[in-house]
Amino acid sequence: MRSDVETLNSSLEVMRGEVNQALHDLIQSEVELGAGEVALEAGRVLNAGGKRLRPILFLLAYQVAGGTKQDDVMPLALAFELIHTATLVHDDINDEAKQRRGIPTIHAQAGQAKAVIAGDWLFVQGFGLGGRYSEQIVSVIARCCANIAVSEFDQLDHVLNLATSPEDYLSIVKGKTAGPFASGCYAAGLVAGLEDEQAKALERFGMELGIAFQLVDDILDLRGDERMGKPRGADVYEGKMTLPLIHALTLSHGTHRQRLSDLIESFSDEDFDELMSLLERSSSMEYAEILVRTHLERAQAELNNFPDSQAKEMMQLITNIVKDRHA
Amino acid sequence: MRSDVETLNSSLEVMRGEVNQALHDLIQSEVELGAGEVALEAGRVLNAGGKRLRPILFLLAYQVAGGTKQDDVMPLALAFELIHTATLVHDDINDEAKQRRGIPTIHAQAGQAKAVIAGDWLFVQGFGLGGRYSEQIVSVIARCCANIAVSEFDQLDHVLNLATSPEDYLSIVKGKTAGPFASGCYAAGLVAGLEDEQAKALERFGMELGIAFQLVDDILDLRGDERMGKPRGADVYEGKMTLPLIHALTLSHGTHRQRLSDLIESFSDEDFDELMSLLERSSSMEYAEILVRTHLERAQAELNNFPDSQAKEMMQLITNIVKDRHA
Repeated sequence: MRSDVETLNSSLEVMRGEVNQALHDLIQSEVELGAGEVALEAGRVLNAGGKRLRPILFLLAYQVAGGTKQDDVMPLALAFELIHTATLVHDDINDEAKQRRGIPTIHAQAGQAKAVIAGDWLFVQGFGLGGRYSEQIVSVIARCCANIAVSEFDQLDHVLNLATSPEDYLSIVKGKTAGPFASGCYAAGLVAGLEDEQAKALERFGMELGIAFQLVDDILDLRGDERMGKPRGADVYEGKMTLPLIHALTLSHGTHRQRLSDLIESFSDEDFDELMSLLERSSSMEYAEILVRTHLERAQAELNNFPDSQAKEMMQLITNIVKDRHA
Repeated sequence: MRSDVETLNSSLEVMRGEVNQALHDLIQSEVELGAGEVALEAGRVLNAGGKRLRPILFLLAYQVAGGTKQDDVMPLALAFELIHTATLVHDDINDEAKQRRGIPTIHAQAGQAKAVIAGDWLFVQGFGLGGRYSEQIVSVIARCCANIAVSEFDQLDHVLNLATSPEDYLSIVKGKTAGPFASGCYAAGLVAGLEDEQAKALERFGMELGIAFQLVDDILDLRGDERMGKPRGADVYEGKMTLPLIHALTLSHGTHRQRLSDLIESFSDEDFDELMSLLERSSSMEYAEILVRTHLERAQAELNNFPDSQAKEMMQLITNIVKDRHA
């Protein structure tokens, strides 16, 4: 008795609406408590949309784990979304980004000082919600956030480092992008009352999905996708060593490698075609796509540890959505 | 049977040592867990000293409230110190400060991007420790931190605002400086098992002490004090409306007020004597000193709600230390 995709999609829409409503209410209540401008600035970015992939996944992971009271897991899901948004606000300062989710960044709108503080405020709100849970779950959240910071440091040290290895890359991605997916799914399983070993299957699901998600981001940065809300090639301009670049640098030799290095080190828009054709020579985009499929298959395999349910089908649908972002 | 000051001072030294050791161990254990550079950078500022006034006060408030197991309250005390240091790291970015606690700021040493992240990491560590407590205490910590952010926004909006009123000032100080003193004392009382009403007396103690603490800071900024670890007049240069300036602007008229406004709006070192003599005319330094005494007396009065103990005497000693900073 499998649900059709339309039913699943409309269930996803309902959940997104619930998450959006809860986030909206949270900002509203903080404004009423006197948080004023900082809540409004932070709320502007928080409520500007975003796919809500993380909180929806955590609500679903809770259901897949047998949880039935959404109110019990909603604060956890929101906590991760708030913390995620906090890191975006702080990233945007460091990247000097002008736009996020189609609107001006806090940095661009209200200046750096307020952007730092608004990010802190979002962190605080996230931890306030996360702190309602057991010591074990609080420690999962804290460990996850600490790893984000560690990986961001690591990533900064690898900017324009042409010797960045696939292992370096994976370690950064696991900490910064995939870690929060993994920790949120794991914690949601614990909230539902799973034994640690079962919850670990959800953690692995999140990790694999998160790695795939980052790889798709890397691909879209090069291919371009107006849905990203950031200009094509932003990663290359920032000197971020994405997987296609790392792969191409590893496989290329002689003049091709030299040219590739030169392009990466001083990139400009007119170099795009040449960059893409160098990536083509080493099949680096194709390689990244294969990795996306591999990680998504592993993610889906982890779901086999759980009984069939609509929530499980929706999690499968989300893995397909991640894949199809670059179709 | 009152202890002599020497005994109290050496007990304070012991507590400071315990706090320092615990902070050092925390960084060490994070480094061993793989936090590497971010823990080292954050730890460099965290372990560079500081009086540890906040954590020591919270340990003492716990004892005054009848608590006997220091291990139960130490994570709370450390949480507030970590969060305090996080706000300093982020403040230093926004103030472009070069030095903190006598060593280069993270901002100056490792750049802005890493300073933002290292501050986030300190927040996360603080919340990780604070999140071990009951939902009520977590919510006290989260509310306190949210208020810090709200007040920092407010303070930014009042930079060089010569119409800043004493009420505006007090509201900012209560959120940013005194609030954490109050929340830490209050939460420590709750950890010790106090009824809410009794714990509120500790909260009021912390609030009064914290206001006095900020007023002394304001005075020292103008008088100069090498123990501050920041140059004399830093607040004036940053356009921060400290109480002596607000008081003088309120009381001055005509050409004196005009000159005072001009000095504040474009301050330089050679203006110091003239600024001080204008503050003298309105007795603004004296006024701030009287307020310090008033708030410290109120703080001490709150301690009368608790039975005599060495911990209570040490809290009284700390109120004297705050007073004598500007002696």
